Amino acid sequence: MIKQEDLAIACLGECRFPTPLDFDSPSHPAANHFLEDSDRIRLNVKLSAAGDADDSRSFEEAGPRKHIFFNPAETTAAIVTCGGLSPGLNNVIRSVFYALTESYGVRRVLGLRNGFLGLNPDSGMHPITLTKEFVEPIDKFGGTCLGSSRGPQDPAVMADFLQANNIDILFCLGGDGTQRGAQALSDELQSRQARVSIVGIPKTIDNDVPFVRLSFGFTTALEKAAEVIRCAHVEARGAVNGIGMVKLMGRNAGFIAAGASVVSQEVDFTLIPEIAFPLHGEQGFLSSLERRIVERGHAVIVVAEGAGQHLLKSGSTERDKSGNQLHADIGEFLQQAIRQHFDRREIPFSLKYLDPSYHIRSVPADVYDRFLCDQMGRHAVHAAMAGKTGLIVGFENSHYIHVPIPIVVSQTKRMDVSGDLWRAVLESTAQPRW
Amino acid sequence: MIKQEDLAIACLGECRFPTPLDFDSPSHPAANHFLEDSDRIRLNVKLSAAGDADDSRSFEEAGPRKHIFFNPAETTAAIVTCGGLSPGLNNVIRSVFYALTESYGVRRVLGLRNGFLGLNPDSGMHPITLTKEFVEPIDKFGGTCLGSSRGPQDPAVMADFLQANNIDILFCLGGDGTQRGAQALSDELQSRQARVSIVGIPKTIDNDVPFVRLSFGFTTALEKAAEVIRCAHVEARGAVNGIGMVKLMGRNAGFIAAGASVVSQEVDFTLIPEIAFPLHGEQGFLSSLERRIVERGHAVIVVAEGAGQHLLKSGSTERDKSGNQLHADIGEFLQQAIRQHFDRREIPFSLKYLDPSYHIRSVPADVYDRFLCDQMGRHAVHAAMAGKTGLIVGFENSHYIHVPIPIVVSQTKRMDVSGDLWRAVLESTAQPRW
Amino acid sequence: MIKQEDLAIACLGECRFPTPLDFDSPSHPAANHFLEDSDRIRLNVKLSAAGDADDSRSFEEAGPRKHIFFNPAETTAAIVTCGGLSPGLNNVIRSVFYALTESYGVRRVLGLRNGFLGLNPDSGMHPITLTKEFVEPIDKFGGTCLGSSRGPQDPAVMADFLQANNIDILFCLGGDGTQRGAQALSDELQSRQARVSIVGIPKTIDNDVPFVRLSFGFTTALEKAAEVIRCAHVEARGAVNGIGMVKLMGRNAGFIAAGASVVSQEVDFTLIPEIAFPLHGEQGFLSSLERRIVERGHAVIVVAEGAGQHLLKSGSTERDKSGNQLHADIGEFLQQAIRQHFDRREIPFSLKYLDPSYHIRSVPADVYDRFLCDQMGRHAVHAAMAGKTGLIVGFENSHYIHVPIPIVVSQTKRMDVSGDLWRAVLESTAQPRW
Amino acid sequence: MIKQEDLAIACLGECRFPTPLDFDSPSHPAANHFLEDSDRIRLNVKLSAAGDADDSRSFEEAGPRKHIFFNPAETTAAIVTCGGLSPGLNNVIRSVFYALTESYGVRRVLGLRNGFLGLNPDSGMHPITLTKEFVEPIDKFGGTCLGSSRGPQDPAVMADFLQANNIDILFCLGGDGTQRGAQALSDELQSRQARVSIVGIPKTIDNDVPFVRLSFGFTTALEKAAEVIRCAHVEARGAVNGIGMVKLMGRNAGFIAAGASVVSQEVDFTLIPEIAFPLHGEQGFLSSLERRIVERGHAVIVVAEGAGQHLLKSGSTERDKSGNQLHADIGEFLQQAIRQHFDRREIPFSLKYLDPSYHIRSVPADVYDRFLCDQMGRHAVHAAMAGKTGLIVGFENSHYIHVPIPIVVSQTKRMDVSGDLWRAVLESTAQPRW
Repeated sequence: MIKQEDLAIACLGECRFPTPLDFDSPSHPAANHFLEDSDRIRLNVKLSAAGDADDSRSFEEAGPRKHIFFNPAETTAAIVTCGGLSPGLNNVIRSVFYALTESYGVRRVLGLRNGFLGLNPDSGMHPITLTKEFVEPIDKFGGTCLGSSRGPQDPAVMADFLQANNIDILFCLGGDGTQRGAQALSDELQSRQARVSIVGIPKTIDNDVPFVRLSFGFTTALEKAAEVIRCAHVEARGAVNGIGMVKLMGRNAGFIAAGASVVSQEVDFTLIPEIAFPLHGEQGFLSSLERRIVERGHAVIVVAEGAGQHLLKSGSTERDKSGNQLHADIGEFLQQAIRQHFDRREIPFSLKYLDPSYHIRSVPADVYDRFLCDQMGRHAVHAAMAGKTGLIVGFENSHYIHVPIPIVVSQTKRMDVSGDLWRAVLESTAQPRW
Repeated sequence: MIKQEDLAIACLGECRFPTPLDFDSPSHPAANHFLEDSDRIRLNVKLSAAGDADDSRSFEEAGPRKHIFFNPAETTAAIVTCGGLSPGLNNVIRSVFYALTESYGVRRVLGLRNGFLGLNPDSGMHPITLTKEFVEPIDKFGGTCLGSSRGPQDPAVMADFLQANNIDILFCLGGDGTQRGAQALSDELQSRQARVSIVGIPKTIDNDVPFVRLSFGFTTALEKAAEVIRCAHVEARGAVNGIGMVKLMGRNAGFIAAGASVVSQEVDFTLIPEIAFPLHGEQGFLSSLERRIVERGHAVIVVAEGAGQHLLKSGSTERDKSGNQLHADIGEFLQQAIRQHFDRREIPFSLKYLDPSYHIRSVPADVYDRFLCDQMGRHAVHAAMAGKTGLIVGFENSHYIHVPIPIVVSQTKRMDVSGDLWRAVLESTAQPRW
Repeated sequence: MIKQEDLAIACLGECRFPTPLDFDSPSHPAANHFLEDSDRIRLNVKLSAAGDADDSRSFEEAGPRKHIFFNPAETTAAIVTCGGLSPGLNNVIRSVFYALTESYGVRRVLGLRNGFLGLNPDSGMHPITLTKEFVEPIDKFGGTCLGSSRGPQDPAVMADFLQANNIDILFCLGGDGTQRGAQALSDELQSRQARVSIVGIPKTIDNDVPFVRLSFGFTTALEKAAEVIRCAHVEARGAVNGIGMVKLMGRNAGFIAAGASVVSQEVDFTLIPEIAFPLHGEQGFLSSLERRIVERGHAVIVVAEGAGQHLLKSGSTERDKSGNQLHADIGEFLQQAIRQHFDRREIPFSLKYLDPSYHIRSVPADVYDRFLCDQMGRHAVHAAMAGKTGLIVGFENSHYIHVPIPIVVSQTKRMDVSGDLWRAVLESTAQPRW
Repeated sequence: MIKQEDLAIACLGECRFPTPLDFDSPSHPAANHFLEDSDRIRLNVKLSAAGDADDSRSFEEAGPRKHIFFNPAETTAAIVTCGGLSPGLNNVIRSVFYALTESYGVRRVLGLRNGFLGLNPDSGMHPITLTKEFVEPIDKFGGTCLGSSRGPQDPAVMADFLQANNIDILFCLGGDGTQRGAQALSDELQSRQARVSIVGIPKTIDNDVPFVRLSFGFTTALEKAAEVIRCAHVEARGAVNGIGMVKLMGRNAGFIAAGASVVSQEVDFTLIPEIAFPLHGEQGFLSSLERRIVERGHAVIVVAEGAGQHLLKSGSTERDKSGNQLHADIGEFLQQAIRQHFDRREIPFSLKYLDPSYHIRSVPADVYDRFLCDQMGRHAVHAAMAGKTGLIVGFENSHYIHVPIPIVVSQTKRMDVSGDLWRAVLESTAQPRW
């Protein structure tokens, strides 16, 4: 669905401990198919007339290894969830727990409370020991049973915490801010020569983590977003010159707005951060909207929260605790602009604004995401038990892969506006090609 | 679920044409059980030690009559939907159409466009002739296939329109504003001695039309509202001292806020228009919220849009086109008050605000509402064909009834805060008894 | 929705302990509105020309009492769920728990495992002590967190168990078989002069418990049943002369089949236990179906599992463990009869059979049922704390009532085929009036 | 999710008319990114230590071409839907229509009725002319608005029909039987030198068409299947030694059973056609089930309809009209085997059987499938307008591709039991590795 920007990775760094793998993987029923570190997945699948110049780019394939680094009987693992919610967090936690305990026989799994705060003793928070009873029902709920928080903590403090609690493996569920924190923690631990594996599981409702084709929670968010768009369409059609406007998540990338527009097939304009659309003028948004209203009697607009920042009074350099830039509200701005335009043009209209905000990210995961979450969690466990560290589990070309965190955080993932997804938006909206 | 205020109705006015019922009801399969006009439904079912002083209050029971006023073969009926959307409008339209055409054999049914605007030729709108193909799929969609609009039109203009189009029966789907318009139109027609039956079908997402225990669309709205409250709860639990606040519809009556709170069983404070809660002070809302946060680590607040108006700068006498008073935004106000309170008290918190707005009213109807809509529509047809006019179909004590419009519009329906529903709220929230 | 058969109840037996109410109800926030035992709810609301001859029939109204029998601080309550599943069981359990602990301050609440089996020490099952943590999430799940089983246990054994465990109050969730067992247990305890309150909460997916207008779980079951009917309709329309047949629950009463047919508005034939439809002949089911197929090209049939027993080889006197008579399979029978008929008539057809079976009863409750479950549970607690026993909580004319168990189990509730619900079926299916 | 079997395709046949592309693609807004026929997508993305020996295998990438074969203004296109239903058929029809009319300006689009029957004049069926009004709402419904049927028709008769109706392009939505019919028709037309483009869109609820990673309708079916599995789990836990068994679609491939088991994470045994599990013996299914019941008190079994055929009396060579082999009923067989086993072992149990059958395939499409359907439909239109024929639109490695029909129908797609999906099943069920 998403076309990756070009990237040139000569090779991957070593994301494993430089030590022998002394233990055999337990002969659990699923151990049907061990992978070697030499199994790799190609990134590029397109061939063109000119040939494919970059065949060598590939990532290590994720999966269980025959020989592992940690002795399950003596291993303590911990899980932490950071940043905003995304559907499926509990599913990942549950599958990590079951993979550790049932597939590998690990006996002690801790849940750290409220993000990286839970690795700082000053917070007064204490880890909880996860049990089968605790994790059994959690996948039916949205959110995270561990709580979350935004923002980093001092890597040294976190490393102290892990060592004080004899934690051998830490699974970090979070976005790029979290993964940066995970890398800093990993570096700190390496500098201490501590053999603590740090494995990231990418979480982004906006689908903007590189090397993760579809991040978990994304299709669930689309389902809810599409439901709200349908309501906007119903409202728009129910009124004289009805305009339904829906604001959706997407600070820097318009994947949710674009995806929800395509699945709805009822959207007239999709506005995303990647395209600086003109507001005024013959080909501008307002005149285009007016034409659509005159022609069809109603219109539906989907706007990503990060769209149209060029129109807003900038100067704002506010950031939230995770370091994300805070945006001025494009939804409010566009409502006002539309009202002024139609009033000035003396065209009666009825504008209905819907902002589902957190609603699309707090619901339980749909089946697609539940599958993804299960596999993300289990592959993270396979990687960690094999002594790998400083990587996230990625997903490209239908395969789970190991991606070194430095590569993940050095890239940004935006929508390719000459690619398939944006073409699908243009085909369904027939909006101008700004 | 709702306790009606006391009302003293000595008797009902005559809501029928003073003429003989010349036609026999067709022998359609459903004609198994004709009702007499003397069949009546009691309003009051409570007996107390002191006895029941008001046994005589009752309404005519709705249902098919053996003898009817209009000759189906020569009758033209029309339907109009007015005001804001409510789940089930299309279901009512569909059942009205099928009852007319299949049960009675009426051959011409018109759909008037965009509310009372569609009865004003100046609007340029034209009625559409409803067909089986047109109405067949509509019940799967939210909204109204006829469009809607707010506000009244001149009764004389509307009466002219009905007469010019040979319309014998008009079904008006709408709230109390609409029913007032319907009554004015009925009066105008009576003064012309025109035998045009005006039958209202009460539509109110807020459940605030008297003599309608549960209005159609209400439980569907609760289902969506409860889903959003669950998200607010998930968000609140996912953060440190998380506060989830949900604003719900309810200008003058808190039925949606109260009902959704009870079905959620996850709400800590429910704020409704009927109760002027204190903001400050030991027993005020803010201190109560603070105690709940300290005790449980999170809290969920549900606020009806019409709650807390005593706290807002009044003076506003703005009204929308239907004449409803426009309220200042209690959601914005409370957000700010909470932020100030917790900042001043130096308690960290995370406030998430959800305003589903139109989302809860634009969705398709749930089964409860689909049943109600079908019966509301069919009973309206039975009433109209029997020559009744100037009434709405009501629903009390599990029976459909005929209620004269003047009685409906002379009353207001609010929640009885000493009744069962509000007790259910207090039991589930354990909030203070303000 | 349902018209009760006539019943003549001169008065109600005493369903309370013959002792003083020594304790005051705690001043919890919800204690806003105490009821007196003299508050009663009328059953009959219909008035006819001949007058209403039976005004005296009424039931005690449910609700909190100012003076209570049990001292909360020293009270032990227990809950048991019996028989087949119904949506909402967990919601009732949860509200019973919260009403006991938070509204009254009861400190010990037990969950008995797997129905009445859990009151028989031979089963090896042990009660679990319910906690806030245990009951908090259960309402999001279908089924019962306590487990269930069918069939009675020896009243003396159960009474011994209650006394041995110092249980003062037992809440029995179940259908008429369960309530008979509850009555036998109550009699046994009375004969021992044991002050153990037995309060029933009626559970019936088939909606066939008397004095309970809509039993909890029923509208949820309709929602799922209607979804399956929609699939049958889609399948029927997708094929040449497509016939979609759906079998639904309903051994002795056709409420589910009838209700789901009305809310679907896509059903051509609804077959229920209350009506012995003819299979053959000009007006029989098969010829009627053939005409519908020829006319419309497709048809949808809904059949209750207890319908058409007159057509099946009887002689079967098998009963399940709860004593319910086992029926021969009308779904299989009708499939075969339809195939033979259309083959003999050489009409091509495509018959799709859907039997959702347990699917409609194992899902979580919808909002309507969640409201009902909460109030059923809380009113049961109010009744028990006030020292009432040998009754169930009923629901008529929008009010919760106390109904003595002997009255409940002495009646059967079937659909009134001259009433509103069946008329609604006939109106929407236009099937023959067999 | 699915690992393809090895395949060695040296090159693709020519799937286009041997004539110049005389027309320019219209400059619709979506025409942002034309593809060349030399753009190809690699199948194989795995690299192993031994190197990748088969780099050359690839398919033409789907997408709009700058130069097209058909003159839109004079082109007639038709759509036909064949075989069993799958969620999303209407979405494909709708997107094909909009791509033809809005993106290319084609003016005449026909819907052929009831599968290939609609191409046989003897059926008495007539094409319908598709309009915007007709297709606008259809994507909200399951099934196919065109109707369907099973089985082939004479290619010569169908070719006559196309030529007689001046049809230039035929889109065939169906499974492998349908695509075989499409190929026969294409061959017939080529032999007549008729320039009629035949483009297939693969439809398979079982996900068993090669070169289509996830076929549309599959994730929707999983959502419903998972819901039913959850009910089975609820039923199993609600009883003493409860066993919930769910039969799911999947004649020859176990993708639905496997996928639904993984997303449920509540399944104890998944039985699929690809693995001939032993029934008896220490490691057999029955003893394994018994151990699970003894250990956990309940168990959930998911069985694909085509599983366990080695256990059933074979000899059956019955086939349905599409040529699919009819299977004896493994669900009935296993129920009986389980009852006998537990009775003989004198272990009490409660077995609940759920067979959702058509329910999982007649529902509307979820967002994932809606995206897929839109793109499948639009890419089929791009291919056809560019003069390509005798191919289907496939989907591998996140790219849409052109696959010659002979290659599709010469392969079978089964689950790779040494691959990721089956490992995910084993990990979540912990069932024996039969």
